[in-house]
Amino acid sequence: MPLIVEKYGGSSVGTSERIRAVADRVAASHRAGDDLVVVLSAMAGETNRLLELARDIDPEADARETDVLISTGEQVTIALLSMALHKLDVPARSYTGGQVRILTDNVHGKARILDIDADMVRTDIEQRNVVVVAGFQGVDREGNITTLGRGGSDTTAVAMAAALKADECRIYTDVDGVYTADPRIVPEARRLEQITVEEMLELSSLGAKVLETRSVEFAGKYKVPLRVLSSFESGKGTLITYEVNKMEQPLIAGIAYNRDEAKLTIRGVPDQPGVASTIFGQISDAHVNVDMIIQNVAQDGTTDLTFTVNRSEYPRARSILEKISAELKAREVVGDDQLAKISIVGVGMRSHAGIASTMFEAMATEGINIELISTSEIKISIGVADRYVELAVRALHKAFGLEVETHEEILDATAVD
Amino acid sequence: MPLIVEKYGGSSVGTSERIRAVADRVAASHRAGDDLVVVLSAMAGETNRLLELARDIDPEADARETDVLISTGEQVTIALLSMALHKLDVPARSYTGGQVRILTDNVHGKARILDIDADMVRTDIEQRNVVVVAGFQGVDREGNITTLGRGGSDTTAVAMAAALKADECRIYTDVDGVYTADPRIVPEARRLEQITVEEMLELSSLGAKVLETRSVEFAGKYKVPLRVLSSFESGKGTLITYEVNKMEQPLIAGIAYNRDEAKLTIRGVPDQPGVASTIFGQISDAHVNVDMIIQNVAQDGTTDLTFTVNRSEYPRARSILEKISAELKAREVVGDDQLAKISIVGVGMRSHAGIASTMFEAMATEGINIELISTSEIKISIGVADRYVELAVRALHKAFGLEVETHEEILDATAVD
Repeated sequence: MPLIVEKYGGSSVGTSERIRAVADRVAASHRAGDDLVVVLSAMAGETNRLLELARDIDPEADARETDVLISTGEQVTIALLSMALHKLDVPARSYTGGQVRILTDNVHGKARILDIDADMVRTDIEQRNVVVVAGFQGVDREGNITTLGRGGSDTTAVAMAAALKADECRIYTDVDGVYTADPRIVPEARRLEQITVEEMLELSSLGAKVLETRSVEFAGKYKVPLRVLSSFESGKGTLITYEVNKMEQPLIAGIAYNRDEAKLTIRGVPDQPGVASTIFGQISDAHVNVDMIIQNVAQDGTTDLTFTVNRSEYPRARSILEKISAELKAREVVGDDQLAKISIVGVGMRSHAGIASTMFEAMATEGINIELISTSEIKISIGVADRYVELAVRALHKAFGLEVETHEEILDATAVD
Repeated sequence: MPLIVEKYGGSSVGTSERIRAVADRVAASHRAGDDLVVVLSAMAGETNRLLELARDIDPEADARETDVLISTGEQVTIALLSMALHKLDVPARSYTGGQVRILTDNVHGKARILDIDADMVRTDIEQRNVVVVAGFQGVDREGNITTLGRGGSDTTAVAMAAALKADECRIYTDVDGVYTADPRIVPEARRLEQITVEEMLELSSLGAKVLETRSVEFAGKYKVPLRVLSSFESGKGTLITYEVNKMEQPLIAGIAYNRDEAKLTIRGVPDQPGVASTIFGQISDAHVNVDMIIQNVAQDGTTDLTFTVNRSEYPRARSILEKISAELKAREVVGDDQLAKISIVGVGMRSHAGIASTMFEAMATEGINIELISTSEIKISIGVADRYVELAVRALHKAFGLEVETHEEILDATAVD
């Protein structure tokens, strides 16, 4: 029997009606012969409701007790889904993170999974029980309840699949797979049949909200066959793959964007060793997350340093940077909090030059000014003014021919240099 | 340091404001030097909210999964109280029933506590941490979550106190102790400074809602010093005692009543062996709980048999009894579902005759017809028409002089025969 780990998010279990719909789907797979482990999130909104209760007591509530509190959210859904399965005559047993011994470190609120003792689950599976596991939670070595942080249920599912050597891990979500671009912006955007784990990682961290980044890392580490699909429609979704067939690999897998960016530039910084570490040391001490960093070659003994931060942290980052600027006797601080980041991702670009120029040309044709550029082996990110996001994404989708499924055409179209 | 186990019910932790008030109280005891274990119920209404979710999925939801679901209620309150204690700089750690290893049998929904492994709690207490334990819940030998049934948090508190050999177990509730009668009916009703465990047991099972019967049994078995007091007012409450000082023992400790009664009589039953077992066998097979049973001596080879049931079960019990009546060729079935039961309880009555006659005389004076009588060593219960409850309770309270605190007077007043 194939062993499948399925994960359903908060919106998929947000009402009793939806829980019954998930039960129908699980029951059908069970009847078709699959062995099943189902990982659940809390009902949509429940974690926030619980956090609100805590905030009412103490806005800076203790992390251990916060985990005790919010882990109840998934405990409710696993019980309800198991009941719904029983109602359909499907044998099912629920387990909390502690019961199924998902061992984590003791970093409350963002714990990492260290080990899963899957024996109990295996016994259940042998008896053809559907095992329903609370996502997002575990226990540390002392038995304290821990939680894995936002999106942690994806990680629970992937970790369960790795521990059980499952045939496939299916993440059911509110979209039916990974797209070449956001379909709300690009109507021609195409669902990818498959995508490499590296591309998925880049897309996740670049703002595509389909899968939580840590779960993709985890899947990559243990080579878990991972599929993203819709809990509301049928369809095969998108499979995350580990072996790249060069011949069939498209140049660009997809386009991601993130609107919540802001950029800050410190001008006329003395070009000396230690300056960058002074700046980013102080920024990081203030717990401001820095994304892209760009430094151009120096001119006249001074240099300009630009970096991007999340828009919400812009005011704080700017005031820190102005203090630093005074200390370093830099010329000035300038910034812009209406920035968007657009990224193209594809393992194919490793071996093909010309991708960057196609990207820049597409922007030039549309009259979009590129404010920042940052690249890695398999992605190119550019910063553009927020108002150009839709236009830029559509132009890039067209320039790389992502609406077309055959790859040869794309190679012809883009191999211009 | 005295070790105190405190238990707060659902209305005491029903809002964040009330949770903060409980934290203030606990913090004061902790500062005064007490070592503390605090047992909590779920927020008032929460258990019903969760059961409603279950009912929405399946009105006859699986018992194991129902326990997984409703045990989240106490997990929420222990986290919130621990946060509130931290906020007051009192070190505190919450534990679920599973974490503190409250081992129960596997009867989901009404499990019995078998054992508590108190080592972890003792370590916390040595470090001067307040230990906050989820009431009402435990785990069976396989690690499945169980719950103890309605009022189970009282039992958790008493069991923790027994396991830790605590100096006192304090049940905080919405009344400030055990009264000689319901103060809503008898304004002169007096709070008892103390009451014997046997009296408390009778009063609990006779309808006084102060303490759950099982927790009193448990306290009696392990001789746990148990005190009932108000979580909203100060005061010493009522202490449940185990050693009876004969000299100071009043004749009657208190008066209990229960309105939800109904009586059924089967007339003209052949007076043969096996008849009673035929009747009550069938009643019990239908899961109808029978309370009092009265059978008079036979006359002309037939007898009348009367018993009481909860009012809600009256129609069902009556239709079963009419079937039986036909089978046995009995004369007729008569019944009345507007019955109330009034009981006087006191260990003192063991050694004093005349209590019953004082009781019956008081009823006669008020013109109240006694429909049923049932006695045990330390209680006398009578059935009267529902509409007489207040009058009967007040008359008995006066007849036994319960508003007076000195016992000699009562002895004089009642030693009439």
